[in-house]
Amino acid sequence: MTDEQEKGVAEPIRVGVLGARGRMGVEVCRAVDGAADMDLVAMVDQGDWLFNASDAGAQVVVDFTTPDVVMDNLHWCIDQGISAVVGTTGFTEARLDRVRGWLAHKPDVGVVIAPNFGIGAVLMMQFAARAARHFESVEIVEQHHPRKLDAPSGTATHTARLIAAARAEAGLGPSPDATAAEIAGARGADIDGVRVHAVRATGLVAHQEVLFGTTGETLTIRHDSYDRASFMPGVLLAVRAVRTRPGLTIGLDSLLD
Amino acid sequence: MTDEQEKGVAEPIRVGVLGARGRMGVEVCRAVDGAADMDLVAMVDQGDWLFNASDAGAQVVVDFTTPDVVMDNLHWCIDQGISAVVGTTGFTEARLDRVRGWLAHKPDVGVVIAPNFGIGAVLMMQFAARAARHFESVEIVEQHHPRKLDAPSGTATHTARLIAAARAEAGLGPSPDATAAEIAGARGADIDGVRVHAVRATGLVAHQEVLFGTTGETLTIRHDSYDRASFMPGVLLAVRAVRTRPGLTIGLDSLLD
Amino acid sequence: MTDEQEKGVAEPIRVGVLGARGRMGVEVCRAVDGAADMDLVAMVDQGDWLFNASDAGAQVVVDFTTPDVVMDNLHWCIDQGISAVVGTTGFTEARLDRVRGWLAHKPDVGVVIAPNFGIGAVLMMQFAARAARHFESVEIVEQHHPRKLDAPSGTATHTARLIAAARAEAGLGPSPDATAAEIAGARGADIDGVRVHAVRATGLVAHQEVLFGTTGETLTIRHDSYDRASFMPGVLLAVRAVRTRPGLTIGLDSLLD
Amino acid sequence: MTDEQEKGVAEPIRVGVLGARGRMGVEVCRAVDGAADMDLVAMVDQGDWLFNASDAGAQVVVDFTTPDVVMDNLHWCIDQGISAVVGTTGFTEARLDRVRGWLAHKPDVGVVIAPNFGIGAVLMMQFAARAARHFESVEIVEQHHPRKLDAPSGTATHTARLIAAARAEAGLGPSPDATAAEIAGARGADIDGVRVHAVRATGLVAHQEVLFGTTGETLTIRHDSYDRASFMPGVLLAVRAVRTRPGLTIGLDSLLD
Repeated sequence: MTDEQEKGVAEPIRVGVLGARGRMGVEVCRAVDGAADMDLVAMVDQGDWLFNASDAGAQVVVDFTTPDVVMDNLHWCIDQGISAVVGTTGFTEARLDRVRGWLAHKPDVGVVIAPNFGIGAVLMMQFAARAARHFESVEIVEQHHPRKLDAPSGTATHTARLIAAARAEAGLGPSPDATAAEIAGARGADIDGVRVHAVRATGLVAHQEVLFGTTGETLTIRHDSYDRASFMPGVLLAVRAVRTRPGLTIGLDSLLD
Repeated sequence: MTDEQEKGVAEPIRVGVLGARGRMGVEVCRAVDGAADMDLVAMVDQGDWLFNASDAGAQVVVDFTTPDVVMDNLHWCIDQGISAVVGTTGFTEARLDRVRGWLAHKPDVGVVIAPNFGIGAVLMMQFAARAARHFESVEIVEQHHPRKLDAPSGTATHTARLIAAARAEAGLGPSPDATAAEIAGARGADIDGVRVHAVRATGLVAHQEVLFGTTGETLTIRHDSYDRASFMPGVLLAVRAVRTRPGLTIGLDSLLD
Repeated sequence: MTDEQEKGVAEPIRVGVLGARGRMGVEVCRAVDGAADMDLVAMVDQGDWLFNASDAGAQVVVDFTTPDVVMDNLHWCIDQGISAVVGTTGFTEARLDRVRGWLAHKPDVGVVIAPNFGIGAVLMMQFAARAARHFESVEIVEQHHPRKLDAPSGTATHTARLIAAARAEAGLGPSPDATAAEIAGARGADIDGVRVHAVRATGLVAHQEVLFGTTGETLTIRHDSYDRASFMPGVLLAVRAVRTRPGLTIGLDSLLD
Repeated sequence: MTDEQEKGVAEPIRVGVLGARGRMGVEVCRAVDGAADMDLVAMVDQGDWLFNASDAGAQVVVDFTTPDVVMDNLHWCIDQGISAVVGTTGFTEARLDRVRGWLAHKPDVGVVIAPNFGIGAVLMMQFAARAARHFESVEIVEQHHPRKLDAPSGTATHTARLIAAARAEAGLGPSPDATAAEIAGARGADIDGVRVHAVRATGLVAHQEVLFGTTGETLTIRHDSYDRASFMPGVLLAVRAVRTRPGLTIGLDSLLD
């Protein structure tokens, strides 16, 4: 039998979506439906029975619901032997420990919980952390639409912390900076010693640039996110990987290597 | 007689350089020397006679000297009927008025005084001022080497002021910004209501980006300056134009139209 | 009565939309409806009476219809004394002449026909044309989604022609290029002597960068368009201006000055 | 004795430079001289004795010479038990095998031969290769000064090959592209299925951008090299590492991990 034939007979992954009528859920349903190697077998939302998913034979469940129901959903999934990919927020260390406890009894079940399913954003952070110890200087410029409430963005803050940790480990001191006369704010926010600048303008969506500099050269890693659909390749990647990774996986990082 | 022949017989402009051994002066001498339509006839520096320039028949003098000698130099040039292109700093309104007074008696002499001979930088500011009233949002990000003392740069501050004036004239209010939680400095310096961010990193030279945003689109004007030689095309442009512009011209702007 | 008071009592412009149910028409209706200084008084589409617009007292009509009906629409508008803003394509010189003929008898009516209502794109082209003669080198890189059929884009080709014309007028020869060994296509398409590169990638929308270079510096003008709504500020600008510009106006350029 | 004290007494690395009067050699001497943890003990050029380096107690030799002498230099270094960092070009597989043969008898000697000592460029290529399999689309735009003879650059071609190999391994087909009407060259050069665009403009130095795209997002990795000094951090990194890596190391990649 050739490789082609083998591919032909591979069964599609049977996927159920929880929170199917929410903003993200709708996108997930569309993405799963459009994936050649997946079958969308259940769309569950508030007021629907979770058993719709198990009755339909779901092998993987994708959960974009809310912090108040996600733990019950996960407990039920693990109990049923269904692996889960979770984009819902609100996971504390205590919650993660409870999930680990449930999984301990189900060696075949995997759960992936990720705060960010954007493959581009995750790789940007990975690369930034890897580059950090090779450059004397580093700054971050993030750019978003003007309706955003926080400055800098959570992603920029997180990136700055990863870079700061890598620099500390490599024994690098602060980036050189001879600024003697500053108009307040010009040099950005100081996040663990890394300067972060937040630009806000109508027309922008969500963008981030990490700039590294050393003698005579700079390296820039830039991520541009244009719409919510940008999370879907990461969700599909996790759906494909979760059953081969028993236990709890946090973040997309390890799935990308 | 053909056009070609006419071009052939055009006399080169006879140019003298004051401050010829200074950092900028050396570059000016090299640039004039390399220009097909100019002859470098005098290189004058501290301790040399100004009359070297007139004796050599200089028609235009380029002055990159110091604030304490530039006024004497200019007075002498105008007196001799020699036009001047000046990159020396330190011109107050009072000084400019004195120059205007000297020129009033010499209707054939022109003087161009410019704070910035970088054609790219001057056009960036022109375009920014022209675009300003058509966009709801605007921010500036400038990037320089880490030995720079001021943040933001003088060019960025000047650009912000030009933009602010154009917005005010068009009746535009502040750029929209819903920031509610800011880590101090993230949103940059406020220059007349325009946010300006200053990035410092080894490897960078001198760069500036003006970002305009409106519904669904952004327009970015970016200037990258890699070395001091970037001022030379602007100096040569002024040398070519100054004799046809009697009186005082401030800045390259009008020469670029 | 003060200026302020006069502003306060200024009547909103009464606007009708032809092609109101088309992709662009829907956006126009939304934009007009959201503009404080306009009233959306008629939404007309295939099968509806044009007289709906005049009955409702429309002062300006916006036409995003099709080449086969737009001439009849325009003839009718001009006849009714209604000014028009037209985004429909297919205007030949012959058609423009017919419109000019109709307008000759109606000195109070204005018509604006524009191939592109994106203010950012129009300014990018204006600035590129203005910068062209000051830089030895120029190249264009445009970036679009991979479903686009033509490469380079119409906007990039048009920009290249504007630049080429400005260079020719200034007596500039070709941009310097010592390339001796080229893998076919690396140096882009040659549009009137200007090199144009077309990038296609999933995730991109519509972007263009014009790069100018001279000794030691570069100037880059970049336009990013994220969605169809980016045309709306330009449409509203034309609606506000059209009644004060009798006769035919082609393109947004003169409205932006 | 504490770690700190140990650091304090660590002996500087004794470094000799071959080709010390060449363009790169001069920069290497300056960089070694400026490094706190190195001593520049010998500067050797054409006509000088190699034994100057061994007599001065060189532990590491840096070779930026020419293809016709580099093999003799290396043979001599290995024979003397001196490790070597080599930036000279012209290494074929046959030459590398001969070096490996010499090293087989000297288990304490290390040799690093690298075609590119720019840390930024090497990381750009590493990251590009790692990102390649996660994105449907990828294109490369490189930008250089107009005196460059080849288009695209060697670095761009090499990057394209690395990406193409990673895509093939991941089972990715060609990047989507619906182009039906192309002006010749617009879509760039095809290097193993990856489109590469080469921009040439006065003012530019050496720049490269790798653009990855997937649904709703793009990831861009950009490298800007401003001058020859950009190779020095990579040379110093190799000098520090070479004695702890016996045998032959090709490229900086493994030294950066």
